[in-house]
Amino acid sequence: MISMKEIGKICGISESTVSKALSGYAGIKPATRDRVQEVARKYGYQPNAMVKCMQTGVSQSIGIACNHFQDLFSGAIMDGVQEVLHQAHYDSYVISWDKLVRSGENLLNRFSRRRVDGLLLLPMAQVPTASYTTQLYSFPNPVVLVDQFWGSREFDYVGSNNREAMKELVGTLIMLGYRKIGAVFYSKVSSGVERRAGFIDAMIAHGLPVNADSLCEVEHCDSCELDEKVLRLLKSEDRPDVLVCFNDNLAVNVMNAARDLGLRIPEDLAVTGFGNLPFSDMIRPRLTTVDQQAEEIGRQAARLLLDRISGKGDIKRQEILIPARTILRQSSASDQNK
Amino acid sequence: MISMKEIGKICGISESTVSKALSGYAGIKPATRDRVQEVARKYGYQPNAMVKCMQTGVSQSIGIACNHFQDLFSGAIMDGVQEVLHQAHYDSYVISWDKLVRSGENLLNRFSRRRVDGLLLLPMAQVPTASYTTQLYSFPNPVVLVDQFWGSREFDYVGSNNREAMKELVGTLIMLGYRKIGAVFYSKVSSGVERRAGFIDAMIAHGLPVNADSLCEVEHCDSCELDEKVLRLLKSEDRPDVLVCFNDNLAVNVMNAARDLGLRIPEDLAVTGFGNLPFSDMIRPRLTTVDQQAEEIGRQAARLLLDRISGKGDIKRQEILIPARTILRQSSASDQNK
Repeated sequence: MISMKEIGKICGISESTVSKALSGYAGIKPATRDRVQEVARKYGYQPNAMVKCMQTGVSQSIGIACNHFQDLFSGAIMDGVQEVLHQAHYDSYVISWDKLVRSGENLLNRFSRRRVDGLLLLPMAQVPTASYTTQLYSFPNPVVLVDQFWGSREFDYVGSNNREAMKELVGTLIMLGYRKIGAVFYSKVSSGVERRAGFIDAMIAHGLPVNADSLCEVEHCDSCELDEKVLRLLKSEDRPDVLVCFNDNLAVNVMNAARDLGLRIPEDLAVTGFGNLPFSDMIRPRLTTVDQQAEEIGRQAARLLLDRISGKGDIKRQEILIPARTILRQSSASDQNK
Repeated sequence: MISMKEIGKICGISESTVSKALSGYAGIKPATRDRVQEVARKYGYQPNAMVKCMQTGVSQSIGIACNHFQDLFSGAIMDGVQEVLHQAHYDSYVISWDKLVRSGENLLNRFSRRRVDGLLLLPMAQVPTASYTTQLYSFPNPVVLVDQFWGSREFDYVGSNNREAMKELVGTLIMLGYRKIGAVFYSKVSSGVERRAGFIDAMIAHGLPVNADSLCEVEHCDSCELDEKVLRLLKSEDRPDVLVCFNDNLAVNVMNAARDLGLRIPEDLAVTGFGNLPFSDMIRPRLTTVDQQAEEIGRQAARLLLDRISGKGDIKRQEILIPARTILRQSSASDQNK
């Protein structure tokens, strides 16, 4: 890449004349301007985005805080985000949120120093601390939460219609003839609380009892180890006919544990996930789950943030829920009505 | 976040005095300096990284080009990269390479405009075009290729010891008693070429014939569809006893196709992967594979790039190979010697 100084040398003019010619300043001879622009093009001159930012106050960049990068759901959101940013000629800084929260560093300082025009907060495995939320309130530019919200819901938010989608999944299972329905939930995040509520909605709507013994809460949603409570439920005489799980990862763990106990899936136990991550269609039996359209969540979140940055749209807090839909596969029987 | 102007108002001094006080300029009274620094701390003042960059010529940021974000191997590399950048107080811009190459935009211009101090190029699914490589050569700052290299190997490179690791895996299979060994390779990328070479090394070293019919080349390594050639091999009378696959994804597809044909794994057919991605331990039977230490690849790549940026280390081209090791699991029999 060539500098303005070098363009000046080639054209036999000063750096400041080059700068004026490149910015379209009127007092430059057309022949000089054309020559400068030709040389700039030929040698791949790139304007300094920082200079532009200091002149306009707009950095054309956003910050993205990501829990970590080994997560296919966040990855799909990121791909959607990048697509929209790319079209808008916006760049993005990323920070691994998980590491920073553990290190105690103020995540937002890193973004503030870069003068990002806005922030996207991708899914977290845990609700952040109160001091973290306070820092977020003092961030001067727009913030959009993605997939998870917390506290008093004051930030813009884009996520799934978790409650409705879970209600629909459980309603479908009931329609297929399932009556003894248990669940494995993770309620440390907002999506978990919503899915649990949707489960209970469906059971009540269909007049089925919600049995506390068949509703497990787990401590972790992404480890390979299955909770002792879930194992007890799988071994119990009064085992449910289907276990509805918070996400695909938990569902696969439940399937593995069930098969280790000699249960056939779906004949002895049906299992459902949530997320429709790529592996849910790769495993056997293929997993019945809920597709969240994660890339679309990413696209809408990026669009909302860019609208906020440019001052477009409604001034009121926005909440965009992307509809998720049930995907029936082999891990649930196609007809349980005998 | 507070500005220098606002700090000045609170302290009853000019913005330029605030600037001098914050940068430790000598001609400021200690009392004023302390007061300014106290106010800056209290209201969370953050220096403008762009000003610092224009003063020093160092942006304390790098560019990361990623094929796409729905890839657990790249995600693990990214986590390693972020860990090292974080410790070094470096920030990173990310760009989804796949989308930019398709859109025909010059990827490097985006990074050049941001004046990044260096570039990391994460794994690609295809070798880039010649024009792209030419652009890369004109990038003025250090570039490190990660996991894949191409062309004349002039850039620094950090990846796996693919050839050695594949030779070790196949050697282990032979030790377990396997003799009829087939393979499914993807040779459009450097790691595929190396793994194929390692396979042939092992077969020759153990005096086993390399049967062309049992060596399949596939067109895609990350789709769910299995190549027709592989299906034919699975159905043939002269089916191998074990199929060694380019990566975990292909191995899972092969296992599924084999089971759909009524073959038991590993009794009728053993299958091995490469990568040790999280799902390889989640599926049943658990997948025999090769662990690449992807996070360590990321850490070493980031360290090498930061060394290059600061001018440390050997001036010669660096190639760092992270040792990968065989992980025996259920998809291969523990002892085939009868």
